[in-house]
Amino acid sequence: MAVSTEPATSPSLTRYATLAADIAQSIHAGVLQPGDKLPSVRSCCAARGISPSTVFQAYYLLEARGLIRARERSGYYVASGAHHPPPEPEIARLPPPASLTVDVSERVFSILQASFQPGTVGLGSAFPAPQHFPWNKLAQSLAACARQAQPQALLDDLSTGHSGLRRHIARRYLADGMPLHMDDVVITNGALEALNLCLSAVTQPGGTVVVESPCFYGALQALERLGLKAVEVPTHPRDGIDLPALETAITSHRPQAIWLMSNFHNPLGSLVPTAHKQALCALLARHQVPLIEDDVYGELYFCARRPLPVKAYDREGWVLHCSSFSKCLAPAWRVGWAAAGRFTQAVARQKLTTSLSTNAPAQAALAHYLEGVGFDKHLRQLRHTLATQRDAMTQAIARHFPPGTRATRPEGGYFMWIELPPGCDALQLHQQALSEGISLAPGPVFSASQRFGRCIRLNYGLLWDARTDQALQQLGSWCHRMQQAAG
Amino acid sequence: MAVSTEPATSPSLTRYATLAADIAQSIHAGVLQPGDKLPSVRSCCAARGISPSTVFQAYYLLEARGLIRARERSGYYVASGAHHPPPEPEIARLPPPASLTVDVSERVFSILQASFQPGTVGLGSAFPAPQHFPWNKLAQSLAACARQAQPQALLDDLSTGHSGLRRHIARRYLADGMPLHMDDVVITNGALEALNLCLSAVTQPGGTVVVESPCFYGALQALERLGLKAVEVPTHPRDGIDLPALETAITSHRPQAIWLMSNFHNPLGSLVPTAHKQALCALLARHQVPLIEDDVYGELYFCARRPLPVKAYDREGWVLHCSSFSKCLAPAWRVGWAAAGRFTQAVARQKLTTSLSTNAPAQAALAHYLEGVGFDKHLRQLRHTLATQRDAMTQAIARHFPPGTRATRPEGGYFMWIELPPGCDALQLHQQALSEGISLAPGPVFSASQRFGRCIRLNYGLLWDARTDQALQQLGSWCHRMQQAAG
Repeated sequence: MAVSTEPATSPSLTRYATLAADIAQSIHAGVLQPGDKLPSVRSCCAARGISPSTVFQAYYLLEARGLIRARERSGYYVASGAHHPPPEPEIARLPPPASLTVDVSERVFSILQASFQPGTVGLGSAFPAPQHFPWNKLAQSLAACARQAQPQALLDDLSTGHSGLRRHIARRYLADGMPLHMDDVVITNGALEALNLCLSAVTQPGGTVVVESPCFYGALQALERLGLKAVEVPTHPRDGIDLPALETAITSHRPQAIWLMSNFHNPLGSLVPTAHKQALCALLARHQVPLIEDDVYGELYFCARRPLPVKAYDREGWVLHCSSFSKCLAPAWRVGWAAAGRFTQAVARQKLTTSLSTNAPAQAALAHYLEGVGFDKHLRQLRHTLATQRDAMTQAIARHFPPGTRATRPEGGYFMWIELPPGCDALQLHQQALSEGISLAPGPVFSASQRFGRCIRLNYGLLWDARTDQALQQLGSWCHRMQQAAG
Repeated sequence: MAVSTEPATSPSLTRYATLAADIAQSIHAGVLQPGDKLPSVRSCCAARGISPSTVFQAYYLLEARGLIRARERSGYYVASGAHHPPPEPEIARLPPPASLTVDVSERVFSILQASFQPGTVGLGSAFPAPQHFPWNKLAQSLAACARQAQPQALLDDLSTGHSGLRRHIARRYLADGMPLHMDDVVITNGALEALNLCLSAVTQPGGTVVVESPCFYGALQALERLGLKAVEVPTHPRDGIDLPALETAITSHRPQAIWLMSNFHNPLGSLVPTAHKQALCALLARHQVPLIEDDVYGELYFCARRPLPVKAYDREGWVLHCSSFSKCLAPAWRVGWAAAGRFTQAVARQKLTTSLSTNAPAQAALAHYLEGVGFDKHLRQLRHTLATQRDAMTQAIARHFPPGTRATRPEGGYFMWIELPPGCDALQLHQQALSEGISLAPGPVFSASQRFGRCIRLNYGLLWDARTDQALQQLGSWCHRMQQAAG
């Protein structure tokens, strides 16, 4: 029987994905070992009160991810390839947070720009492979809108953005349980501009901003550009930013803002638990500190439903929520937005005075595309691909990297954070890899204080083929060698 | 004989446009008076050594501008409507330049945002009427590129921009006598982003920047946003910035940059003479001060060929030249660029860290459009329209506004600066006009010190119809009334 492994569009999505996640967790936790037989479909139906087709869907999904194998006439078994994943990294241990002048931008450029060679296996890339996106459909929308465009309409929506697009974005917030008015949405040139405008709106040069350690290097570059100081607060690969350390940082340094990610962190891949998000929100309100929340990976979840951002728990408007279509739909179109709570007008004015407005045809085309059902279908497919490749990367790391290697277990997005064992050096590995046509993002670019010298960020969202696996094998063997050389 | 008044695409463009400009100047200077007969075509051919068709083209152009009229079987005569234009404004008299903290942004927003009501006669608009642009051709290019786009190519040109587009822009610089490498061009989200990135690249918060008085309000908003102080140096409606005052400002205030326009100034419409541009360039080199040159109207010239920007005379790389397609081809596409001389890398990095890159489909489509001959053809048509409407506005001002009104004589672009006679108030006129559905840009938004209370900027690039003339008549009658009430 030929069965598509793509999740169906039925309302049972939640149930089968939940079941699959439960079983995957049991495998990762070692409750189910390679060779173990899974519960029969019949017993599973009875135990959970679900239909056989739901159970089959969950099993097909697990099979596609390489975690289980069907044996003819016998049932499903945990695959021999379903190794125990590497252990997770520990939280970064840091001295009490200090305030740092940021001076990373040149270093980040020199490290990352070298990675843009054609033909490189782009494990260091910040984008998924372009082949994962629905370019044909987007082109159709673009062509349709370009033909229909009323010249006047192109000028009417200067400033805060195309009204149709803002309405679609507001509707998606609403569907996720975050009622927003479309006027609360400011369209920007990608999330990077949104983040930068938000930062400008709530800070003054010389001020201090709390960032995570590790954090997205773009945040560090923004601080440097605006003459802001950084206070680095450690962030946990599973729980997110260390809340007691954050509160200490707030009381000692009186930051003008906090900048962090709560869903599928860059570079960790981590997802902050709901209770933690709520506690963070309470802390913001208590100290009246704005939070710039970078949620560009929020739609790329592997769990049953979209994890809510911190924004969802914000009753007082302290969260400036930034996202975009660049990571989940249309890279290089550069359309993002900010929903900046009480700072909306300030952000809108920053936008008007820095770049006026965002490309009108792209906004109209996205609004047109979002009219249909294609976006959710595309997202399901993309999530499925990324989840499958996450498993493949986890297994490759377990197989090829030396003992002592740790790796995060992302529940969304496409970044995995690898902590190499003692003796390994990320920058050295980066140099070696580049010379052999493999890119990676070395840990020190994610820190104002050049920490994480033994860590690397890998992208499992690229087009996965034999070269990818070979590249990971090669990275692993260089790590083995470095470890041995160190002794 | 049905004759198109659109300039032909032949190489004689220079000659006929030169002849037309010479005659227009003679009319404006009063050498030729209404009712005077123009030289016959035959004598004109003999005197200038040009062909009859060249003379006819010049006469058709002047006829289209309302400056001359043909009388059957008799020849061409200066039209009765070819009034003497109003006198030009004097240079703003200012005390020796002081350094000012800029605090204009809110005022500018409150004044200008009220103007965006649908149905308003947009004399205050910053854009020409959208109907003047070749939307169908642009849509074709967009659709063609969207269909052909290789996904990978969409990511390859992140950062400094689409290589084809940068090549076209570099070629146009070259054709104008400014040899540039395409890598010297950084593509931005419109010229406004280019200007802001350039300003960030060469200044530090707390520094001082020289601006013109009057100047584009976007410059003042940029200074305010970046915490920079302004030194206002008066600028002449015909000669541009006052060079002795500029040198005094440089030696007394040690500015980190100068920001000005040398071609078709916003709001004055003035064109700085070549010798003045060269002297300015020498001054930059002598004092080693960067110049941010806003040249967004440079292609909209009414004279025979594109006036070179200050950039053309810059041998040492002090000029950061910014322009875009927003005013001359594709408003709301938001594609501009900076050619930043010795600051190119700094500007490119500002771009990467603030908004990463510019909408890829729009860049590809513009490159595609620029492959053809359509751009130059469109520009000729647009220049012709604007020149004709400049004349219509000059005549309307002369006819409807009270004696003592002064007006600039723009040789390009679409802005005219009107100095109202004593007793008139620009902000009061703005309020009155808005309440009757007419927008204008009152003088005080163009100054950090709220000067120019008797000046207004009018846009003659809108779609010219009976309503436009009526609106100008109404503005004139309100001015008469204000003058009488004060008198």
